Amino acid sequence: MPETPLDPSGTPPIALLDVDAELVDNLGTLVATEAQGMVLNLLADLHPADIARLLTHLPREHALQLIHWMDEQVSSEVLAELDPAYQAALLKELPPEQITAIVDELDTDDAADVLAELPDEVTEQILPALEDAADLQELLGYGEDTAGGLMAREYVSVEAAETIAEAVEEVRRKEADVVDLYVVYVVDEQNRLVGVVTLKRLLLAARHAQARVADVMDTDPIQVPTDLDQEEVARIMERYDLVSLPVVDPDGCLVGRITIDDVVDVLREEAEEDLQRMSGLTGDEEPTDSVLRITRGRLPWLLIGMVGAVLSGLVIGAFEDELERAVVLAFFIPVVMAMAGNAGIQSSAIVVQGLASGDVWGSDITTRLGKEMAVALINGVVLGLVLVGVVWLLVGIGFWGDEVDAPMQLALTSSLALLMVILLATGIGTTIPLLLHRVGIDPALATGPFITTSNDILGLAIFFLLAALLYLP
Amino acid sequence: MPETPLDPSGTPPIALLDVDAELVDNLGTLVATEAQGMVLNLLADLHPADIARLLTHLPREHALQLIHWMDEQVSSEVLAELDPAYQAALLKELPPEQITAIVDELDTDDAADVLAELPDEVTEQILPALEDAADLQELLGYGEDTAGGLMAREYVSVEAAETIAEAVEEVRRKEADVVDLYVVYVVDEQNRLVGVVTLKRLLLAARHAQARVADVMDTDPIQVPTDLDQEEVARIMERYDLVSLPVVDPDGCLVGRITIDDVVDVLREEAEEDLQRMSGLTGDEEPTDSVLRITRGRLPWLLIGMVGAVLSGLVIGAFEDELERAVVLAFFIPVVMAMAGNAGIQSSAIVVQGLASGDVWGSDITTRLGKEMAVALINGVVLGLVLVGVVWLLVGIGFWGDEVDAPMQLALTSSLALLMVILLATGIGTTIPLLLHRVGIDPALATGPFITTSNDILGLAIFFLLAALLYLP
Repeated sequence: MPETPLDPSGTPPIALLDVDAELVDNLGTLVATEAQGMVLNLLADLHPADIARLLTHLPREHALQLIHWMDEQVSSEVLAELDPAYQAALLKELPPEQITAIVDELDTDDAADVLAELPDEVTEQILPALEDAADLQELLGYGEDTAGGLMAREYVSVEAAETIAEAVEEVRRKEADVVDLYVVYVVDEQNRLVGVVTLKRLLLAARHAQARVADVMDTDPIQVPTDLDQEEVARIMERYDLVSLPVVDPDGCLVGRITIDDVVDVLREEAEEDLQRMSGLTGDEEPTDSVLRITRGRLPWLLIGMVGAVLSGLVIGAFEDELERAVVLAFFIPVVMAMAGNAGIQSSAIVVQGLASGDVWGSDITTRLGKEMAVALINGVVLGLVLVGVVWLLVGIGFWGDEVDAPMQLALTSSLALLMVILLATGIGTTIPLLLHRVGIDPALATGPFITTSNDILGLAIFFLLAALLYLP
Repeated sequence: MPETPLDPSGTPPIALLDVDAELVDNLGTLVATEAQGMVLNLLADLHPADIARLLTHLPREHALQLIHWMDEQVSSEVLAELDPAYQAALLKELPPEQITAIVDELDTDDAADVLAELPDEVTEQILPALEDAADLQELLGYGEDTAGGLMAREYVSVEAAETIAEAVEEVRRKEADVVDLYVVYVVDEQNRLVGVVTLKRLLLAARHAQARVADVMDTDPIQVPTDLDQEEVARIMERYDLVSLPVVDPDGCLVGRITIDDVVDVLREEAEEDLQRMSGLTGDEEPTDSVLRITRGRLPWLLIGMVGAVLSGLVIGAFEDELERAVVLAFFIPVVMAMAGNAGIQSSAIVVQGLASGDVWGSDITTRLGKEMAVALINGVVLGLVLVGVVWLLVGIGFWGDEVDAPMQLALTSSLALLMVILLATGIGTTIPLLLHRVGIDPALATGPFITTSNDILGLAIFFLLAALLYLP
């Protein structure tokens, strides 16, 4: 973790300077004219996190120039604030000795993330030269999205039999190493986690310097295994309002610590991924990605959408005779598709969100379906009445000329079809995620193209069947 | 803030018991048979956050029964973990004295949230009887979504001239009051915020008991005004990796503290709101809402979708002559609409997300548009070729009978139209959010219905115009 502004040994006082397009322009000009002194002066007022944001808006060669100019401690703090992919893209342009020096300044969790992103040959070259080589080797062995992948090796732990004074001394010994410290972990002789002591408690116990840590610790601390998924880690820290969470190996031995800032990043990342997936993006598209990379990410979704659309087209094609006999029916194609899609997405979104947050349970299927169908019935009737009005109006103003000879029948048929489509789409949107959840498939995958496509196809089929039955002579 | 599991004075050791449907069933049976002892025994092993989750799955009368049975400290801890709306729904069923006792146990930020949700007459009745009445009155005055609305009045502050020993004594005096403590705030004689001291620093400085706080504090702490929007608060705490953030009034005087757990809630809430809005929900629909409330939230979006669909229908209706001459064209309606919609949403989603995270800037319009158009060109050509293949295949298997007499021309016309539609949809999806952002309108509002509808309409118009021009004899 980078130095935080709350730490006295680290960065200078923070002016919450606005990082905006103007500042980027000015900085760009200064870098281009090699005005090193002025640039460093400007950056001296900025928090590393703000410098990092600036870097992502500069051309790569300017960003590299800045990293060359800054001293290693500052540049490592700045790099720690960037996405690992971005860090690696900048670092790999630097000579190995400079990469080593910068990575050495990072906390082990951040260092492991960068090493994972760097080209393999670079990682192999610099890893042995790093101070924490053994720790990093271990961290690199854990899955990226697990507790092991999130945790850092920097923490403070003491044995239960040690005194308060010894615990304070241990905090002092690790002062520079563990910057953000809220809790001291307590272990037994085998390094198995047996308790925690908050810094507040340690501070208040300090007057009893010879008391044992065991006397003031909380036993049975909340802890997670190294292979727990990061979403679950986030949920645990959120639910129990934790700012740091110890990670243990299968023997219960303490191996690392996850801090809340990493979890905040996980939450933000996952929210962005969810939004992207709903929009037909890969989930990790960055605005800075290359055209080819963006295309590679988006094209598959468009192709899936195309398959769905062609299937809908085939349904329409199958009713071409009906359409030829009453071309007015084409007017209702977008209406049926839009309403089926929207109603289905509304229902599935609330179910998927509820399943993720724990507010909807897999066993709730009947209750949930009942409620959704009630909502669909009301909405379907209202929208059906609106559609009757629209058809009436269009017939009235002569939009269809003399083509429609039974306007009342057209209005009623289309409205009835709309109601049925909305009920069906809602039923599908509600049950599919619940069923997927029950068989252990992530229901979020089902909200998008699958539900929309099946609703479109069934909706169009219902509409044309009803039209053939009730409207066409 | 509720007692956290890390605090020794509070809750019992935590077994991370799974809260699942089975547990809810068992509990429901026990409550129904009035087995108070067994229920309390069962709950004794649970963290307040888990009891809170359980409550939301019980019928209201059972939940109330449980609250009656638990002692006030436990029930207040449990209530603090619930959504304020849910808290209020349960509390308002209790007698005023019990509400007062429970609210008194809450931290001021949570207490203010509950009071805001309770019916006005209940709030007016119990407010004067509360211990922190003055503080709560003040907190209720701030906007719900501002720093003032998020902050609690529980914090530890000392004057800069005080000694380390006095600071430690102040921490001790507030031990029970401020449960989660990471930082001591430092103020001048007028209570203006002048610095912060982390607990780690205080712990290590404790051996110099007579040193001044001013000697160990960090000056110029990051701070926010009471009226700052909660999204901005979240962004600041996230960017600078803070676990607590001081809030000051217009004179710079310290008035409260925001802790990271509140910000995690804000992030989660906002991510859920974004996802809901994209799915055509109001942003605050809860699975537990009543049918009427859900309907009220969803119907407006469906009506907007209906207006858009009717407009698309009118475009189709305007080309009815062309459709009558070649009903095969109806096959392409879903293809054009789906591709226009998907491509537009992909582009707008990445721009909106980039604008929100600061990765895309309002001034980036030309760069962004150039990149998006390049992606659209590649995708459009690929999808166009696929469509040529599909048409070829359908003609080959005789899907359209002998209706299509110029299959090559149909294939080329529809593919060219598809390419143009994708380019246009991408252009609209990219520029509209950037333009809205520039004039100060939230671009997220534009991703949904507006862009999809305008893309559908323009896409259909382009397709039928090209068909009339190039395909129809």
